[in-house]
Amino acid sequence: MPAAAPKARSPRQSAAASPWAGRRRPREARALKREAVILAAARAFRERGYHNTSLDDLAASLKVTKPTLYLYVPNKEAILFECFRAGLDPLLQTLDECERASGPARERLFAFIRGYATAIVGDFGWCMLRAEDQHLGTAMSRRIKLLKAGIDKRMRALIEAGVADGSIRDCDPKMTAFALAGALNWMGHWYREDATLKPREIAERFIDFFNRGLRGRD
Amino acid sequence: MPAAAPKARSPRQSAAASPWAGRRRPREARALKREAVILAAARAFRERGYHNTSLDDLAASLKVTKPTLYLYVPNKEAILFECFRAGLDPLLQTLDECERASGPARERLFAFIRGYATAIVGDFGWCMLRAEDQHLGTAMSRRIKLLKAGIDKRMRALIEAGVADGSIRDCDPKMTAFALAGALNWMGHWYREDATLKPREIAERFIDFFNRGLRGRD
Repeated sequence: MPAAAPKARSPRQSAAASPWAGRRRPREARALKREAVILAAARAFRERGYHNTSLDDLAASLKVTKPTLYLYVPNKEAILFECFRAGLDPLLQTLDECERASGPARERLFAFIRGYATAIVGDFGWCMLRAEDQHLGTAMSRRIKLLKAGIDKRMRALIEAGVADGSIRDCDPKMTAFALAGALNWMGHWYREDATLKPREIAERFIDFFNRGLRGRD
Repeated sequence: MPAAAPKARSPRQSAAASPWAGRRRPREARALKREAVILAAARAFRERGYHNTSLDDLAASLKVTKPTLYLYVPNKEAILFECFRAGLDPLLQTLDECERASGPARERLFAFIRGYATAIVGDFGWCMLRAEDQHLGTAMSRRIKLLKAGIDKRMRALIEAGVADGSIRDCDPKMTAFALAGALNWMGHWYREDATLKPREIAERFIDFFNRGLRGRD
Protein backbone atom coordinates (compact mmCIF):
# COMPACT_ATOMS: atom_id res chain seq x y z
CA MET A 1 0.00 0.00 0.00
CA PRO A 2 1.49 3.36 -0.93
CA ALA A 3 1.93 5.86 1.91
CA ALA A 4 -0.85 8.41 2.21
CA ALA A 5 0.01 11.72 0.58
CA PRO A 6 0.56 14.46 3.15
CA LYS A 7 -2.62 16.37 3.87
CA ALA A 8 -2.89 19.93 2.54
CA ARG A 9 -2.31 22.38 5.38
CA SER A 10 -4.53 25.34 5.99
CA PRO A 11 -2.82 28.49 4.74
CA ARG A 12 -1.45 30.84 7.32
CA GLN A 13 -3.20 34.05 8.18
CA SER A 14 -3.36 36.23 5.07
CA ALA A 15 -1.48 39.52 5.36
CA ALA A 16 -4.46 41.27 3.75
CA ALA A 17 -6.95 40.72 6.60
CA SER A 18 -5.34 42.70 9.41
CA PRO A 19 -5.39 40.87 12.73
CA TRP A 20 -5.15 44.29 14.36
CA ALA A 21 -8.77 44.92 13.31
CA GLY A 22 -11.76 43.47 15.22
CA ARG A 23 -12.04 41.98 18.69
CA ARG A 24 -10.72 38.58 19.75
CA ARG A 25 -9.68 36.78 22.90
CA PRO A 26 -6.21 38.11 23.89
CA ARG A 27 -4.20 34.92 23.42
CA GLU A 28 -5.74 34.12 20.05
CA ALA A 29 -5.34 37.73 18.93
CA ARG A 30 -1.69 37.77 19.90
CA ALA A 31 -0.94 34.54 18.00
CA LEU A 32 -2.67 35.86 14.88
CA LYS A 33 -0.79 39.14 15.02
CA ARG A 34 2.51 37.37 15.47
CA GLU A 35 1.77 35.16 12.46
CA ALA A 36 0.89 38.21 10.39
CA VAL A 37 4.25 39.81 11.29
CA ILE A 38 6.10 36.67 10.23
CA LEU A 39 4.22 36.27 6.96
CA ALA A 40 4.68 39.93 6.01
CA ALA A 41 8.38 39.65 6.84
CA ALA A 42 8.81 36.49 4.75
CA ARG A 43 7.24 38.22 1.75
CA ALA A 44 9.35 41.36 2.22
CA PHE A 45 12.59 39.34 2.60
CA ARG A 46 11.84 37.44 -0.59
CA GLU A 47 11.00 40.57 -2.58
CA ARG A 48 13.68 42.95 -1.35
CA GLY A 49 16.23 40.72 0.38
CA TYR A 50 16.82 40.37 4.12
CA HIS A 51 19.41 43.13 4.40
CA ASN A 52 17.33 45.57 2.37
CA THR A 53 14.28 45.15 4.62
CA SER A 54 14.19 47.22 7.81
CA LEU A 55 11.86 46.79 10.76
CA ASP A 56 10.52 50.23 9.81
CA ASP A 57 9.55 48.91 6.35
CA LEU A 58 7.91 45.92 7.98
CA ALA A 59 5.97 48.01 10.49
CA ALA A 60 4.81 50.31 7.68
CA SER A 61 3.63 47.36 5.55
CA LEU A 62 1.55 46.12 8.50
CA LYS A 63 0.33 49.64 9.31
CA VAL A 64 1.62 49.44 12.89
CA THR A 65 4.42 51.24 14.72
CA LYS A 66 7.86 49.74 15.23
CA PRO A 67 7.34 49.48 19.04
CA THR A 68 4.21 47.43 18.28
CA LEU A 69 6.37 44.97 16.33
CA TYR A 70 8.58 44.50 19.38
CA LEU A 71 5.56 43.11 21.25
CA TYR A 72 5.76 40.05 19.01
CA VAL A 73 9.40 39.65 18.01
CA PRO A 74 12.64 40.81 19.68
CA ASN A 75 14.64 41.66 16.52
CA LYS A 76 15.00 41.10 12.77
CA GLU A 77 17.20 38.01 13.14
CA ALA A 78 14.53 36.39 15.32
CA ILE A 79 11.91 37.18 12.67
CA LEU A 80 14.02 35.49 10.00
CA PHE A 81 14.37 32.47 12.25
CA GLU A 82 10.59 32.36 12.78
CA CYS A 83 10.07 32.55 9.01
CA PHE A 84 12.48 29.65 8.64
CA ARG A 85 10.58 27.67 11.28
CA ALA A 86 7.23 28.50 9.71
CA GLY A 87 8.45 26.96 6.46
CA LEU A 88 9.97 23.97 8.20
CA ASP A 89 7.00 23.10 10.43
CA PRO A 90 4.76 21.57 7.72
CA LEU A 91 7.81 19.80 6.29
CA LEU A 92 8.55 18.21 9.66
CA GLN A 93 4.91 17.23 10.07
CA THR A 94 4.97 15.58 6.62
CA LEU A 95 8.17 13.76 7.56
CA ASP A 96 6.52 12.48 10.75
CA GLU A 97 3.58 11.18 8.71
CA CYS A 98 5.84 9.55 6.11
CA GLU A 99 7.95 7.87 8.76
CA ARG A 100 4.87 6.52 10.55
CA ALA A 101 3.05 5.38 7.40
CA SER A 102 3.12 1.76 6.27
CA GLY A 103 4.16 0.63 2.82
CA PRO A 104 7.45 0.58 0.91
CA ALA A 105 9.91 3.28 2.01
CA ARG A 106 10.29 4.46 -1.60
CA GLU A 107 6.60 5.46 -1.68
CA ARG A 108 6.96 7.14 1.70
CA LEU A 109 10.01 9.05 0.43
CA PHE A 110 8.01 10.18 -2.61
CA ALA A 111 5.15 11.30 -0.35
CA PHE A 112 7.66 13.43 1.53
CA ILE A 113 8.95 14.85 -1.77
CA ARG A 114 5.39 15.98 -2.62
CA GLY A 115 5.19 17.86 0.68
CA TYR A 116 8.69 19.31 0.21
CA ALA A 117 7.88 20.67 -3.27
CA THR A 118 4.81 22.45 -1.93
CA ALA A 119 6.64 23.93 1.06
CA ILE A 120 9.64 25.18 -0.89
CA VAL A 121 7.57 27.29 -3.29
CA GLY A 122 5.35 28.63 -0.50
CA ASP A 123 5.59 31.94 1.33
CA PHE A 124 8.44 30.75 3.54
CA GLY A 125 10.47 28.95 0.87
CA TRP A 126 12.87 31.84 0.34
CA CYS A 127 13.61 32.02 4.08
CA MET A 128 14.08 28.25 4.30
CA LEU A 129 16.64 28.41 1.51
CA ARG A 130 18.37 31.68 2.24
CA ALA A 131 18.29 32.13 6.03
CA GLU A 132 21.72 30.56 6.39
CA ASP A 133 23.33 32.92 3.85
CA GLN A 134 22.41 36.14 5.65
CA HIS A 135 25.51 36.28 7.86
CA LEU A 136 23.49 35.74 11.04
CA GLY A 137 25.00 35.46 14.50
CA THR A 138 26.77 32.23 15.42
CA ALA A 139 24.03 30.91 17.71
CA MET A 140 21.30 31.53 15.12
CA SER A 141 23.35 30.03 12.27
CA ARG A 142 23.92 26.98 14.41
CA ARG A 143 20.24 26.49 15.19
CA ILE A 144 19.36 26.70 11.50
CA LYS A 145 22.16 24.32 10.46
CA LEU A 146 21.04 21.79 13.09
CA LEU A 147 17.42 21.88 11.94
CA LYS A 148 18.48 21.43 8.29
CA ALA A 149 20.85 18.61 9.21
CA GLY A 150 17.97 16.90 11.05
CA ILE A 151 15.85 16.85 7.89
CA ASP A 152 18.77 15.60 5.81
CA LYS A 153 19.39 12.79 8.30
CA ARG A 154 15.75 11.71 8.21
CA MET A 155 15.68 11.78 4.40
CA ARG A 156 18.74 9.53 4.33
CA ALA A 157 17.05 7.20 6.82
CA LEU A 158 14.02 6.91 4.51
CA ILE A 159 16.35 6.06 1.61
CA GLU A 160 18.19 3.50 3.76
CA ALA A 161 14.84 1.99 4.79
CA GLY A 162 14.02 1.68 1.08
CA VAL A 163 17.29 -0.12 0.38
CA ALA A 164 16.54 -2.39 3.36
CA ASP A 165 12.98 -3.23 2.23
CA GLY A 166 14.10 -3.60 -1.41
CA SER A 167 11.90 -0.81 -2.79
CA ILE A 168 15.02 1.31 -3.49
CA ARG A 169 18.00 -0.23 -5.23
CA ASP A 170 21.41 -0.14 -3.60
CA CYS A 171 22.71 3.45 -3.69
CA ASP A 172 24.71 6.05 -1.74
CA PRO A 173 22.00 7.42 0.62
CA LYS A 174 23.97 10.57 1.45
CA MET A 175 24.59 11.59 -2.16
CA THR A 176 21.06 10.58 -3.17
CA ALA A 177 19.57 12.74 -0.39
CA PHE A 178 21.75 15.68 -1.52
CA ALA A 179 20.67 15.24 -5.15
CA LEU A 180 16.98 15.05 -4.17
CA ALA A 181 17.20 18.05 -1.84
CA GLY A 182 19.05 20.04 -4.50
CA ALA A 183 16.46 19.37 -7.19
CA LEU A 184 13.68 20.34 -4.77
CA ASN A 185 15.39 23.39 -3.28
CA TRP A 186 16.13 24.73 -6.75
CA MET A 187 12.36 24.92 -7.32
CA GLY A 188 12.34 27.77 -4.80
CA HIS A 189 14.64 29.61 -7.20
CA TRP A 190 12.90 29.12 -10.55
CA TYR A 191 9.25 28.47 -9.68
CA ARG A 192 6.77 31.26 -10.46
CA GLU A 193 3.17 31.26 -9.25
CA ASP A 194 1.89 31.91 -12.75
CA ALA A 195 3.64 28.81 -14.13
CA THR A 196 1.66 26.25 -16.14
CA LEU A 197 2.54 23.38 -13.80
CA LYS A 198 1.42 23.47 -10.17
CA PRO A 199 3.94 22.40 -7.48
CA ARG A 200 2.21 19.04 -7.14
CA GLU A 201 2.49 18.38 -10.90
CA ILE A 202 6.16 19.35 -10.89
CA ALA A 203 6.69 16.96 -7.96
CA GLU A 204 5.09 14.13 -9.96
CA ARG A 205 7.45 14.72 -12.92
CA PHE A 206 10.42 14.88 -10.60
CA ILE A 207 9.31 11.67 -8.89
CA ASP A 208 8.95 9.92 -12.24
CA PHE A 209 12.53 10.94 -13.04
CA PHE A 210 13.85 10.02 -9.57
CA ASN A 211 12.06 6.69 -9.74
CA ARG A 212 12.94 5.43 -13.19
CA GLY A 213 15.95 7.54 -14.20
CA LEU A 214 16.71 8.76 -17.69
CA ARG A 215 17.99 5.58 -19.30
CA GLY A 216 16.28 4.62 -22.53
CA ARG A 217 17.76 1.99 -24.82
CA ASP A 218 21.37 1.01 -24.18
CA MET B 1 31.06 5.38 -28.45
CA PRO B 2 30.66 7.41 -25.27
CA ALA B 3 31.34 11.13 -25.53
CA ALA B 4 34.82 12.20 -24.46
CA ALA B 5 34.92 13.47 -20.89
CA PRO B 6 35.64 17.20 -20.78
CA LYS B 7 39.34 17.93 -20.38
CA ALA B 8 40.54 19.27 -17.04
CA ARG B 9 41.22 22.97 -17.34
CA SER B 10 44.34 24.58 -16.06
CA PRO B 11 43.63 26.39 -12.80
CA ARG B 12 43.45 30.14 -12.93
CA GLN B 13 46.23 32.29 -11.63
CA SER B 14 46.65 31.64 -7.89
CA ALA B 15 46.05 34.67 -5.69
CA ALA B 16 49.19 33.76 -3.73
CA ALA B 17 51.71 34.44 -6.52
CA SER B 18 51.24 38.18 -7.04
CA PRO B 19 51.15 39.17 -10.72
CA TRP B 20 52.30 42.62 -9.57
CA ALA B 21 55.73 41.12 -8.87
CA GLY B 22 58.29 40.42 -11.62
CA ARG B 23 58.55 41.68 -15.20
CA ARG B 24 56.32 40.58 -18.07
CA ARG B 25 55.19 41.87 -21.45
CA PRO B 26 52.55 44.56 -20.84
CA ARG B 27 49.54 42.79 -22.37
CA GLU B 28 50.26 39.48 -20.63
CA ALA B 29 50.92 41.28 -17.34
CA ARG B 30 47.65 43.16 -17.56
CA ALA B 31 45.63 39.99 -18.25
CA LEU B 32 47.26 38.21 -15.31
CA LYS B 33 46.58 41.10 -12.96
CA ARG B 34 42.99 41.33 -14.07
CA GLU B 35 42.54 37.58 -13.44
CA ALA B 36 44.09 37.94 -9.98
CA VAL B 37 41.59 40.70 -9.13
CA ILE B 38 38.69 38.53 -10.26
CA LEU B 39 39.87 35.45 -8.39
CA ALA B 40 40.53 37.39 -5.17
CA ALA B 41 37.06 38.97 -5.48
CA ALA B 42 35.37 35.61 -6.03
CA ARG B 43 36.99 34.22 -2.89
CA ALA B 44 36.11 37.32 -0.84
CA PHE B 45 32.47 37.30 -2.03
CA ARG B 46 32.12 33.64 -1.11
CA GLU B 47 33.68 34.11 2.33
CA ARG B 48 32.12 37.40 3.40
CA GLY B 49 29.24 37.92 0.99
CA TYR B 50 29.08 40.38 -1.91
CA HIS B 51 27.58 43.26 0.09
CA ASN B 52 30.06 42.82 2.94
CA THR B 53 33.09 43.07 0.62
CA SER B 54 34.27 46.57 -0.32
CA LEU B 55 36.71 47.48 -3.07
CA ASP B 56 38.97 48.69 -0.23
CA ASP B 57 38.98 45.16 1.27
CA LEU B 58 39.73 43.73 -2.14
CA ALA B 59 42.59 46.18 -2.81
CA ALA B 60 44.05 45.41 0.63
CA SER B 61 43.89 41.65 0.04
CA LEU B 62 45.83 42.12 -3.22
CA LYS B 63 48.23 44.59 -1.59
CA VAL B 64 47.44 47.30 -4.16
CA THR B 65 45.67 50.65 -3.91
CA LYS B 66 42.02 51.12 -4.85
CA PRO B 67 42.95 53.35 -7.86
CA THR B 68 45.09 50.44 -9.11
CA LEU B 69 41.99 48.21 -9.06
CA TYR B 70 40.19 50.68 -11.31
CA LEU B 71 42.80 50.03 -14.00
CA TYR B 72 41.29 46.55 -14.40
CA VAL B 73 37.63 46.81 -13.47
CA PRO B 74 35.22 49.76 -13.48
CA ASN B 75 33.19 48.85 -10.34
CA LYS B 76 32.15 46.09 -7.95
CA GLU B 77 29.15 45.02 -10.00
CA ALA B 78 31.39 44.53 -13.04
CA ILE B 79 33.76 42.41 -10.91
CA LEU B 80 30.88 40.18 -9.83
CA PHE B 81 29.86 39.81 -13.45
CA GLU B 82 33.43 38.86 -14.41
CA CYS B 83 33.47 36.28 -11.60
CA PHE B 84 30.21 34.90 -12.97
CA ARG B 85 31.69 34.75 -16.49
CA ALA B 86 34.89 33.13 -15.23
CA GLY B 87 32.81 30.33 -13.73
CA LEU B 88 30.64 30.03 -16.81
CA ASP B 89 33.42 29.96 -19.41
CA PRO B 90 34.66 26.38 -18.77
CA LEU B 91 31.04 25.25 -18.51
CA LEU B 92 30.28 26.71 -21.93
CA GLN B 93 33.41 25.14 -23.38
CA THR B 94 32.34 21.75 -21.97
CA LEU B 95 28.89 22.23 -23.46
CA ASP B 96 30.44 22.98 -26.86
CA GLU B 97 32.48 19.77 -26.64
CA CYS B 98 29.50 17.69 -25.54
CA GLU B 99 27.33 19.06 -28.33
CA ARG B 100 30.00 18.36 -30.95
CA ALA B 101 30.90 14.88 -29.66
CA SER B 102 29.50 11.76 -31.27
CA GLY B 103 27.70 9.00 -29.37
CA PRO B 104 24.34 8.77 -27.57
CA ALA B 105 23.08 12.11 -26.24
CA ARG B 106 22.64 10.60 -22.77
CA GLU B 107 26.40 9.99 -22.53
CA ARG B 108 27.07 13.51 -23.82
CA LEU B 109 24.67 14.91 -21.20
CA PHE B 110 26.51 12.96 -18.50
CA ALA B 111 29.86 14.28 -19.76
CA PHE B 112 28.45 17.78 -19.37
CA ILE B 113 27.28 16.92 -15.84
CA ARG B 114 30.86 15.94 -14.93
CA GLY B 115 32.11 19.33 -16.09
CA TYR B 116 29.25 21.12 -14.31
CA ALA B 117 29.98 19.43 -10.97
CA THR B 118 33.63 20.49 -11.14
CA ALA B 119 32.79 24.10 -12.08
CA ILE B 120 30.14 24.59 -9.42
CA VAL B 121 32.45 23.69 -6.53
CA GLY B 122 35.33 25.74 -7.95
CA ASP B 123 36.44 29.26 -7.01
CA PHE B 124 33.68 30.88 -9.06
CA GLY B 125 30.83 28.55 -8.06
CA TRP B 126 29.46 30.89 -5.42
CA CYS B 127 29.33 33.78 -7.92
CA MET B 128 27.68 31.57 -10.55
CA LEU B 129 24.96 30.64 -8.08
CA ARG B 130 24.52 33.87 -6.20
CA ALA B 131 25.26 36.69 -8.63
CA GLU B 132 21.58 37.03 -9.49
CA ASP B 133 20.50 37.40 -5.85
CA GLN B 134 22.66 40.45 -5.11
CA HIS B 135 20.11 43.04 -6.21
CA LEU B 136 22.24 44.17 -9.15
CA GLY B 137 21.19 46.82 -11.65
CA THR B 138 18.59 45.86 -14.26
CA ALA B 139 21.04 45.62 -17.18
CA MET B 140 23.45 43.39 -15.25
CA SER B 141 20.66 41.14 -13.92
CA ARG B 142 19.41 40.76 -17.46
CA ARG B 143 22.81 39.74 -18.83
CA ILE B 144 23.21 37.12 -16.12
CA LYS B 145 19.67 35.76 -16.60
CA LEU B 146 20.23 35.50 -20.37
CA LEU B 147 23.50 33.58 -19.95
CA LYS B 148 21.87 31.19 -17.46
CA ALA B 149 18.85 30.72 -19.71
CA GLY B 150 21.22 29.87 -22.58
CA ILE B 151 22.76 27.02 -20.60
CA ASP B 152 19.35 25.75 -19.54
CA LYS B 153 18.18 25.76 -23.17
CA ARG B 154 21.22 23.79 -24.31
CA MET B 155 20.80 21.24 -21.49
CA ARG B 156 17.20 20.72 -22.56
CA ALA B 157 18.34 20.30 -26.16
CA LEU B 158 20.77 17.55 -25.07
CA ILE B 159 17.91 15.81 -23.23
CA GLU B 160 15.65 16.16 -26.28
CA ALA B 161 18.41 14.74 -28.48
CA GLY B 162 18.59 11.77 -26.09
CA VAL B 163 14.85 11.18 -26.37
CA ALA B 164 15.19 11.43 -30.16
CA ASP B 165 18.10 8.95 -30.37
CA GLY B 166 16.46 6.62 -27.83
CA SER B 167 19.25 6.83 -25.23
CA ILE B 168 16.92 8.78 -22.88
CA ARG B 169 13.39 7.57 -22.26
CA ASP B 170 10.45 9.84 -22.96
CA CYS B 171 10.40 12.59 -20.30
CA ASP B 172 9.66 16.28 -19.70
CA PRO B 173 12.94 17.88 -20.86
CA LYS B 174 12.26 21.18 -19.07
CA MET B 175 11.53 19.64 -15.68
CA THR B 176 14.36 17.14 -16.09
CA ALA B 177 16.84 19.95 -16.84
CA PHE B 178 15.60 21.84 -13.76
CA ALA B 179 15.99 18.75 -11.56
CA LEU B 180 19.51 18.08 -12.89
CA ALA B 181 20.61 21.71 -12.53
CA GLY B 182 19.16 21.85 -9.01
CA ALA B 183 21.01 18.74 -7.85
CA LEU B 184 24.25 20.09 -9.32
CA ASN B 185 23.86 23.68 -8.14
CA TRP B 186 23.13 22.48 -4.61
CA MET B 187 26.65 20.98 -4.57
CA GLY B 188 27.94 24.56 -4.48
CA HIS B 189 26.07 24.91 -1.20
CA TRP B 190 27.09 21.76 0.67
CA TYR B 191 30.41 20.72 -0.87
CA ARG B 192 33.54 21.24 1.24
CA GLU B 193 37.07 20.87 -0.10
CA ASP B 194 38.03 18.50 2.71
CA ALA B 195 35.18 16.11 1.84
CA THR B 196 35.93 12.42 1.30
CA LEU B 197 34.48 12.38 -2.20
CA LYS B 198 36.04 14.52 -4.93
CA PRO B 199 33.68 16.44 -7.27
CA ARG B 200 34.25 13.88 -10.01
CA GLU B 201 33.27 11.01 -7.68
CA ILE B 202 30.16 12.86 -6.55
CA ALA B 203 29.27 13.43 -10.20
CA GLU B 204 29.56 9.67 -10.87
CA ARG B 205 27.16 8.84 -8.02
CA PHE B 206 24.74 11.50 -9.20
CA ILE B 207 24.95 10.16 -12.75
CA ASP B 208 24.27 6.62 -11.56
CA PHE B 209 21.16 7.92 -9.80
CA PHE B 210 20.07 10.09 -12.77
CA ASN B 211 20.62 7.18 -15.13
CA ARG B 212 18.94 4.32 -13.34
CA GLY B 213 16.68 6.02 -10.79
CA LEU B 214 15.89 4.70 -7.32
CA ARG B 215 13.44 1.94 -8.13
CA GLY B 216 14.29 -1.41 -6.65
CA ARG B 217 11.75 -4.23 -6.53
CA ASP B 218 8.11 -3.31 -7.17
